[in-house]
Amino acid sequence: MVRRYAILGTGAIGGYYGACLQRGGAEVHFLLHSDYDHVVNHGLVIESVTGDFALPKVYAHRHTNTMPPIDVVIIALKTTQNALLPQLLPPILGPETALLTLQNGFGIEAELADWASHDQLARPQNPTILGGLCMICANKVSPGTIRHLDYGSVLLGQHRADHQPAGVSPLLRAIGQDFQAGQVTVEMVDDLRLARWRKLMWNIPFNGLSVVMNATTAEMMADPSIRQLAEQLMVEVLEAAQCDGDRFSPGQGRHLPPELIVHMLTHTEHMAPYRTSMKIDFDQGRPLELEAIYGNPLRAAQAAGAAVPTIESLYHQLKAMDSASKHQ
Amino acid sequence: MVRRYAILGTGAIGGYYGACLQRGGAEVHFLLHSDYDHVVNHGLVIESVTGDFALPKVYAHRHTNTMPPIDVVIIALKTTQNALLPQLLPPILGPETALLTLQNGFGIEAELADWASHDQLARPQNPTILGGLCMICANKVSPGTIRHLDYGSVLLGQHRADHQPAGVSPLLRAIGQDFQAGQVTVEMVDDLRLARWRKLMWNIPFNGLSVVMNATTAEMMADPSIRQLAEQLMVEVLEAAQCDGDRFSPGQGRHLPPELIVHMLTHTEHMAPYRTSMKIDFDQGRPLELEAIYGNPLRAAQAAGAAVPTIESLYHQLKAMDSASKHQ
Repeated sequence: MVRRYAILGTGAIGGYYGACLQRGGAEVHFLLHSDYDHVVNHGLVIESVTGDFALPKVYAHRHTNTMPPIDVVIIALKTTQNALLPQLLPPILGPETALLTLQNGFGIEAELADWASHDQLARPQNPTILGGLCMICANKVSPGTIRHLDYGSVLLGQHRADHQPAGVSPLLRAIGQDFQAGQVTVEMVDDLRLARWRKLMWNIPFNGLSVVMNATTAEMMADPSIRQLAEQLMVEVLEAAQCDGDRFSPGQGRHLPPELIVHMLTHTEHMAPYRTSMKIDFDQGRPLELEAIYGNPLRAAQAAGAAVPTIESLYHQLKAMDSASKHQ
Repeated sequence: MVRRYAILGTGAIGGYYGACLQRGGAEVHFLLHSDYDHVVNHGLVIESVTGDFALPKVYAHRHTNTMPPIDVVIIALKTTQNALLPQLLPPILGPETALLTLQNGFGIEAELADWASHDQLARPQNPTILGGLCMICANKVSPGTIRHLDYGSVLLGQHRADHQPAGVSPLLRAIGQDFQAGQVTVEMVDDLRLARWRKLMWNIPFNGLSVVMNATTAEMMADPSIRQLAEQLMVEVLEAAQCDGDRFSPGQGRHLPPELIVHMLTHTEHMAPYRTSMKIDFDQGRPLELEAIYGNPLRAAQAAGAAVPTIESLYHQLKAMDSASKHQ
C-alpha cells in the first residue's frame, strides 16, 4: 500500500522530509504559500551533504481543501503558526488519518489531541497522534530549494493521552519504513515524552542563550560563563524530566541519565559553529517558538514539582526580547 | 576643626560630593587624570537641579604623593579600578586617616579593611572604614563639569570586621556634618551591611537587566516579563539579606521588610526613564562593576545558605557580555 502524506509547511523541515518520503515512493502533497508558483513550475530541489536530488514534479497545494483524503498529516509549520491548524486540518482528516508533528518543543501532541477531541467533525475515534524529533541542520535557501547541511535522522514515537509510554505500533513502524525507503535514518521509541525531554536538554540551553547572548554554539562553548549557564540549564531540564517521569510513572525510572549533560556539552563543543533555529528566527524578525520550547516544559516542570528557576528566568528574558522584536 | 578630604576619582560622584564638601568649608584635594589641566585652570562646575555652582579654585593633583596628610580619603573610583588603591593610598594615610568608600555594591569595605591590615605601612591601628551609599543621578558631561540630575542624598555607615552593626561614631557624625554643611542630605545608619543589601535590591535587578535586555528603567517596567524577572531578583536579594542577617546576628532581625519590593517597583515605575550606571558603562565600552554588584553579594548569599539562582544566572550572562565587550 502506498501511503498518502500531506506536508503542512514546506520549509526546511517539511520540504526535506517530504521530499525524502516522495523519493522513497510515498504519495506526498505539499502545502505551500509564497513558494507555490515556483514549486508548481520547478518542483523541489534538495542540496544535501549526502547527495543532491530533485523532484521536478510534486503535488503542490495552496490550501488543504484541494488535497485528497490523507493517511498521515505531517505538521511542519513553526509552532507559532499552530493557530492555523483548525482551518488547515478538517478538509484532509478521514476516519483513520494520523497526525505526525515534526515540530520542536514540548506539549504539541497534547494540544493536537485536545483540539481533535473538541473539533466539530464527527469521527468514530480520536486520531492517532505521533511525534517526530528531527535531528537535522537544514535551511530553505530560495523558493523550492532546501539545503541540508548535517545530520538528518528522525526519531518517531506515539503520544498517549495519559502520558505513558505508547510502545511502537504497526502504524508507527509503517511510517518509519516510509521514511527509511526515502533514505532517512529512523529511530522508533516507546517513550515519546522522555525523548522530548531529552531533546529539550539541548534546545533549552542553546536556543535561548544564543538569542540572549547573541552567539553561535561555538561562541557559547568558548565562554566559561555561558558554558556554566548552559550546564545549569541542562541540570534543571534533567531534574524536570525526572520529576515528570516520577509524576506519571512512579517507580518506573523514566529518567534521563545524568552523564547526558557532559555528553551533550562535549558534543556541542566539537560541532561546527552553528546558529540555532531560534537565533535565525530572531535575526529574521520572526516570532520565537517560546511556548513550545520554554513555556510548555516550564509549566510541566512546575506541575511535577521541579525547581527550574534558571529556565524561568531565560523564558522571561526571551519573552521580553520577542515582544520588543520587529515582528510585533 | 577643618577636616581635610581627598577625593580619589573625580568623576560624577567624586566631583559632586567633593565640590559640596568644599562648598561647606572642608579642605578638599581632588585626584584627577585626564581632566587635570582643565581643572587646574578652570576649577569645577556643578550644573545642578538644585542650583548651579562653581569652584574656580580647587586643590587638584595628578598623584596622591603631592597631597598633604588626609583625614578622610573618599574613594570614588569605579570598583573595577580598585587595583590602583595599593599605590594611591599609602602616601596620604596618617595614623588616624579614615577611608570612606562611596562606591556601589557589596564587600568593598571588607576588601579595604583586608588590604589595610596587610599593607606595608607600620600603623598603630587599622584605619576606620566607612561606607557611603549615594542616592543620586549625576553624570560628568565635560572636563570639570558635572551635571546633577536628580536626588543627591548620601547614607553613611561604619564597617565592622565582624559584620555587626557599628552604630554612629563621633567621627561618622562629624563627617556627616561636613556633608550637611555642603547642603547634602545625609542619613547616618547603625547597620551599613543591611543598608548595602537594601541598595542591592534595586541595583541587582535594574543594573543587570538594563544591560542584558538593552533597556531603560521605563522600558523594563513597561514589559511584564522583565518586571516579573526584576521582582524575582528582588525576592532573592531579600532572601539573601535575611540569611546574611541571620548568619551574623541570629535572632536579631537584621532583615529588610518584604513590602520594600512593591515599594521599589512602584517607585521605579514612576521615575523618569533612566539609563543605569552599568548600562552607561556597557554602552561606553567600560568594564562592568560585576564583582561589587553581583559576584560579592552572590558569594555572601551562598555562604549564608540563600538560594539565589536568578542572580547567579544574570551574573553569568553579564560576565559573558563584559568579556565580549570592546574594552577587552
